Amino acid sequence: MLSKNQIKLLARLKQKKFRQEQGLFVAEGIKTIQELLNSTLILHQLYTVKSFNLDAELETLIDEKELKKISFLKTPNQALAVFKIPDEKDLPKKGFVLALDDVRDPGNLGTIIRLCDWFGISNLVCSEQTVDCFNPKVIQATMGSITRVQVSYTDLNTYLNDTTLPVYGAFMDGKNVYTESLVSEGVLVMGNEANGISEDIEKHITKRISIPRFGEIQATESLNVATATAILLSEFRRG
Amino acid sequence: MLSKNQIKLLARLKQKKFRQEQGLFVAEGIKTIQELLNSTLILHQLYTVKSFNLDAELETLIDEKELKKISFLKTPNQALAVFKIPDEKDLPKKGFVLALDDVRDPGNLGTIIRLCDWFGISNLVCSEQTVDCFNPKVIQATMGSITRVQVSYTDLNTYLNDTTLPVYGAFMDGKNVYTESLVSEGVLVMGNEANGISEDIEKHITKRISIPRFGEIQATESLNVATATAILLSEFRRG
Repeated sequence: MLSKNQIKLLARLKQKKFRQEQGLFVAEGIKTIQELLNSTLILHQLYTVKSFNLDAELETLIDEKELKKISFLKTPNQALAVFKIPDEKDLPKKGFVLALDDVRDPGNLGTIIRLCDWFGISNLVCSEQTVDCFNPKVIQATMGSITRVQVSYTDLNTYLNDTTLPVYGAFMDGKNVYTESLVSEGVLVMGNEANGISEDIEKHITKRISIPRFGEIQATESLNVATATAILLSEFRRG
Repeated sequence: MLSKNQIKLLARLKQKKFRQEQGLFVAEGIKTIQELLNSTLILHQLYTVKSFNLDAELETLIDEKELKKISFLKTPNQALAVFKIPDEKDLPKKGFVLALDDVRDPGNLGTIIRLCDWFGISNLVCSEQTVDCFNPKVIQATMGSITRVQVSYTDLNTYLNDTTLPVYGAFMDGKNVYTESLVSEGVLVMGNEANGISEDIEKHITKRISIPRFGEIQATESLNVATATAILLSEFRRG
């Protein structure tokens, strides 16, 4: 049985401010929860219609109706788990780093985290205005990849100012990415959905790159940030 | 002023069956509507809070409250237009063709149509179970690209059986796309979100390709179909 208080606390985890205060976030669905349980993340409490055979104090058995009440999804999937938000690690100083300048859409961030996982990119550095990676919609879209990609939030301006890595940025008028020389250690910056990379960040970018358009002049104005990231990461990795 | 009957008819255009019966579909937002008006599509009726200076009989002025009633969006954007569904054209026999085997998510199809537009691919052939391209969510996601990409629905099995083009297909265990020889004229088949390419379609595929995974073994199981399509189209086009 769930108390009214528990239901209220869980609902408040939709809000970033409350997640940060409590140091907790929500994940849903058996498959995602299993992946998170198998990672270094620490479970706070599991609410499930079927036992996972965990320590009794970590597991609360509920019925479908209760799950429906606490779930953030239209079609809840058997269990909802609350995990502890891990401690922030140091910002990456080497390797290949993807940086996001104010990406706002949770689905886009989720897709981008999944892409980082696929391409073996373990560090994603986000501007403070980028959507929170512990937003339930992001967690849902990452399909467990959040456990393998280190996401940091910081003042991107300062980070790029301090880094010794070469800094690439995606622009509509950049140089053809298919013919530019790309590196295995560097930062790639992707901009906001509507406005691209901001002026403040642009000044740190040493290589402006672009995905050439093959259609007619009248063609689509731009690619979605998640699909553009897919193509650019593929280019950096294919060698 | 909108009549109750008009509101009811517009609401029914959410349904594929009704769209096909009427030969009509809905597009929203000034920018998308403008792009559609500038294309070969034929306007049936425009409902708008601000005149577009069209023929009086094509334009119905409404207020924000009425727009809210007929809009399919959470935040309606000044106008809603009903266009005629264009006649189906012949299936493509040459050039580069993208084929979809039961892609179900409207957002994915919209993103894929936008990608075709970007990469100058004018023909998209869809299985009959693929989500309808005149679904309002698809139209929204294409951002006007629907006017520049010819989308056909057909029995994919028969189409692939009849084509003389080489047929590529995306599989988890296909050959590395970065090192395979790719062609400028051919068909690329992408599969369903959950099940990939079906057995029926698989037998027509002469080249199985795959995007290599760079992460650890435990990494994400698969890429989303729209991001995988982005990477593969980029590979075919980059030469």
